[in-house]
Order: sequence, then structure tokens, then C-alpha cells
Amino acid sequence: MSSMSSLKSRLLPAITTVTSVGVGVWLGVQYERKTLPFPSVFAKTSSPSDEVDTRTVPGHLVPVPPGPSSHTSPGKAGQIMRFGFPGLTDLKSREGYVVSYDRRNRNPHWVFEHLTSAHIRGESDRQECDFKEDETIHPYFRATNWDFKRSGYDRGHLAAAANHRHSQSAMGDTFYLSNISPQVGEGFNRDAWNRLERYVRGLTKQFNNVYVCTGPLYLPRMESDGKMYVKYEVIGRNHVAVPTHFFKVIACETNKGELILESYVMPNAKIDNNYPLKNFLVPVESIERASGLLLFDRIPRNTFKAINGRQP
Amino acid sequence: MSSMSSLKSRLLPAITTVTSVGVGVWLGVQYERKTLPFPSVFAKTSSPSDEVDTRTVPGHLVPVPPGPSSHTSPGKAGQIMRFGFPGLTDLKSREGYVVSYDRRNRNPHWVFEHLTSAHIRGESDRQECDFKEDETIHPYFRATNWDFKRSGYDRGHLAAAANHRHSQSAMGDTFYLSNISPQVGEGFNRDAWNRLERYVRGLTKQFNNVYVCTGPLYLPRMESDGKMYVKYEVIGRNHVAVPTHFFKVIACETNKGELILESYVMPNAKIDNNYPLKNFLVPVESIERASGLLLFDRIPRNTFKAINGRQP
Repeated sequence: MSSMSSLKSRLLPAITTVTSVGVGVWLGVQYERKTLPFPSVFAKTSSPSDEVDTRTVPGHLVPVPPGPSSHTSPGKAGQIMRFGFPGLTDLKSREGYVVSYDRRNRNPHWVFEHLTSAHIRGESDRQECDFKEDETIHPYFRATNWDFKRSGYDRGHLAAAANHRHSQSAMGDTFYLSNISPQVGEGFNRDAWNRLERYVRGLTKQFNNVYVCTGPLYLPRMESDGKMYVKYEVIGRNHVAVPTHFFKVIACETNKGELILESYVMPNAKIDNNYPLKNFLVPVESIERASGLLLFDRIPRNTFKAINGRQP
Repeated sequence: MSSMSSLKSRLLPAITTVTSVGVGVWLGVQYERKTLPFPSVFAKTSSPSDEVDTRTVPGHLVPVPPGPSSHTSPGKAGQIMRFGFPGLTDLKSREGYVVSYDRRNRNPHWVFEHLTSAHIRGESDRQECDFKEDETIHPYFRATNWDFKRSGYDRGHLAAAANHRHSQSAMGDTFYLSNISPQVGEGFNRDAWNRLERYVRGLTKQFNNVYVCTGPLYLPRMESDGKMYVKYEVIGRNHVAVPTHFFKVIACETNKGELILESYVMPNAKIDNNYPLKNFLVPVESIERASGLLLFDRIPRNTFKAINGRQP
């Protein structure tokens, strides 16, 4: 990279640190420095009407920056990406949780919650909540209630409704379909998965702070030809993926500031009610490799007091 | 969201605009404002040794911020995500292309190039290039040459090597495995896909600027039970996904500043050599819906002079 332009030299310190944080950081930095080459990305508001595809609406023209003046600066990301960024992570910060949305599978990538005993107590009523489309997601990628109709699958919460009883609006937020995955109903969503969710809420009695990351998995398995395949159903017009498994990784903090970690994977399938939860404990590394995520990665693993019940 | 904390109010303008840009923007903004709650994320350098999992290395402790002082601020993303962000988009800006890496599938999400007649001319020699691991990607998610060994698949470039003949180092960059997908060799990578790549290079003779976005697809198909399934092989120890299809979306700019768009999808399969390229043209919207990406979305579709050979 001998012919580094001045733009690139300026961006380089930002770009080279974004390994696991994404270009968004770089965009954010440039936005603050008022040097962002794509101001229109940020000119958008988040009101639902703005999320409608306006590209075919006459009069809604986006000014196009001038083309490159020379052909000698091939490394400029801003030039290469002149007409838009194809996609980055859709992230939503809601009252009770943070979700990263997988636009390809129309499922969450992951949902993060912080629970305390105060969060799970309250008079909120889930009968007042309705499953609702997340209008902040582009219509091309948005799951709808219609997609679940007659699919045979429940609309399964990843941030559980009952985790947010302290606030009716926080509970209502968990009904956005961006927090929902298709789950097997009987034997899973209404049974084993529900048992795991109740177990997590119970942890708030023992621990001051409980941090929970929940997400879908699409795990490969060997078929008769000896090769490994990932296979999963997609439902509805929008092809909402049906994950093969779900994970929950839980970090609990004691009042001494000690941390314990537990990580579970359950198949999206009917599970015997007598099967103990601890049988679903798996190494957190397995979840990380399978999901493409790093979980609680600010905490060195050997500083946890316990991981899945054992000293690390 | 009645009890909005001051932190949240400060973040809100940033958070609500990140719909399609990701939390990274928000992180970047906070970084520049020196208010980032996760400074250690940015303290990392991008040197390969830093990418090794240091979480279990004694003495490499990451300072943990103090826990929440009250339980009345459930909406703070910074509190919820206190111990790390599970994952965002891995983005690499290289000399000739920009790539977003899919850590779950160990493939690119998309690769973006800007080509001109100057880019594709030169004396660079692909015999001097070797396929190489991308050490800027965490080892958990990194494809290796071993994964391709005896898999039966070629290491197929998404940004083609021959697109970057003007510079040996730019050509070398296309051999990072983060720019590579497993492709069927005979009949596809060495034939139909190669024809498409040559066609794209040929466009630089007609057009001043050619912008190309290339990526994998994992398309569902109906099985005998009448349901739709996504199914794809994964190869090697790292479970590198074998995409079912690949797309290429090309925006060409004339010297009058007019734009034409072409979008292709090809199955990752042996294709008859006599099958014309134009038979693989598909509406760009189909690619967007299937990939979860928005392509050239800064340009309203009705302002293109032609899309797939027709006036929009």
C-alpha cells in the first residue's frame, strides 16, 4: 500500500482498529469530524415513514458526489463505496434490551439484557402487549406477523417478556418482531426454553446483576454422504429463518463483584420435561465459534469465579 | 421510555440514526466525544498478535467498569453491554477493495470494488501471490487454507485478482481468505464465473467508472414436504460455508455521469459454457432481499439510465 492518499492516512488509524467493531465506528468518527463522505446516511431520521424504500419515489433524489478525479487512488474506501454501503449491523437500543438484527435471516443476531430483581417485579401485563412489526427495519428485511401465520411455529421472545415486568412499555418492547424467532411451541418455547428463562430470572435473587445474551444458532450436522451441512427452514413471504438451536450466555455478578458465567444451547425442538437444564450447558467458546460472536469478551475467562459450574 | 437517563438522552440522537449503519457509528461518535464507555475496545491495535485470544492470558486483564449504581435505568445500552459487544460487522479496507466479513459463515458478506481501465492494466503476476489467512480476523472465525484442502472446492476470489493488475500489492490483497468463498471449480470458478469477471473488466473500456459489489447467497428452495429450506455445505475444521449462489451488482458511469446497473446471480454449480451471461440477470431487489443488503442505495432506481438493459 505504497500510494496512500491523505484521506486514507487520516482514516487508517480508525480503520485498522475496527476489526471487531465494524465500519460503523469509522463512519461515526468521520461523522463527528465532519469529514464523512456519506452525509445522507445520517440525514435520515428514524421515523417509520423514512424507512420506506424511497429510492423509487420521484423528487426524493439523493445528491450524488462527484466521481473520482483521477485513477491513481484505488484504496479510498470512500470512493469505492461512493453510491452507498450495502449493509452493516442493524442495531436497536430498546428500554430493556439491545438487539442486533440479522437482515438476511430476519431474526435477531443477538439480544442483550441486564436484569436485576427490580426489573422482573411489577404489575405489567403481557395481555396488553401485541406482537408488532419493527418499522425501523427496512421492509425488505422485516419479519411480519403474516410470516408466522400457519407456520406451525411460535413467535418466541429472545428477551423474555416476563424479564421486564417493571415497566409496561419495556415489556411491550419485547414484542417487536425484531426480538422474536420462530420457535417450536409445545415442548420448547412453552416448556424447556421457558424453564431456562425462569431459571435466569431466579438468578436475580442470588446475584445483584445478571447479564444475558440470547441468540439463534444454525448448526451444521453430518449427513449420510459424510459431509457437514447447515439446513434450516424459512417461513412466510419474507423467508424468516427457523434457527436450529438457541443459546443463552449468562454473566452473574455477586455483591463482591465476582462473576460467574453459564452458557446454554438448546435445540429448537420438543424437549422432554424431565431433562435437566444443566444438560444443556456447553463451553461458551462453542457458542462463539458457531455464532460468529464474542461473548462477554471484556472479561478474561480466567477471572470468572466459575464457568458452567467449574473454576476456569 | 419515561425514565430516560442523561446518558441515554445524550446517546439517543446517535442511536436512533443507526438503523442501517450499526452501533459502530454510535461507538465511533462516542469515541470521538471521549465519552465512550468501552475505551479498551479501541486500545487494541490491529497487529496479528493482538488478534490472538488474550482472554485467558494472565496479566492481560481488562479493567471492568463499576456496576450500575441503581436499578432504575434499564435503557442504558452502555450498562446492558458492560462486558463487551458480541459482534458487529468485520470490515476491512484494502488497497483495491472493501470487504465486510461474515464471521458466522467464514465468508465475505460483500466485497466492493471500483474499477477503471487503469486498474486492470499492468504487469502484476498472480503467480507471485499466495492464498493467505487474514490475521486481522479473530482465530475463531478465520478461514484457513486447511479448510479448503480436499474439500473439492476452489478458493474463489470475490474481488478478482485480475481486476487489480495495476499493483502487485493490490493483487496480493485479493488473496486474503477473507476475500474468498468456496466455489465449484470446473464449470463455475474457472468458467462461467470467470466469464462474468472478464465481462466486468471489459466494461471499463466503455465506462469511466465501474463499481462492483460481489457476494455469496444462501438461497432457500422447496423440498418435497412443500416447505422452504436453506441448505448449504460447510467445509473444514472452521466450517467455512459453501454458498449456494453468488451475486454481482455492477454500476457503470458514463462520461456524461449517467449510470447503468446490472445485477447477476449464478448458482455455485457447473454451468454450461454456451449459456449466455444475460440469462443470469435478476432484479437487484431480489438480491437485496436474499442477501440482507441494500445495493447502490444512494442512487434512486429511477435515475439509472438502464437497469439490466431496460429503462427503469
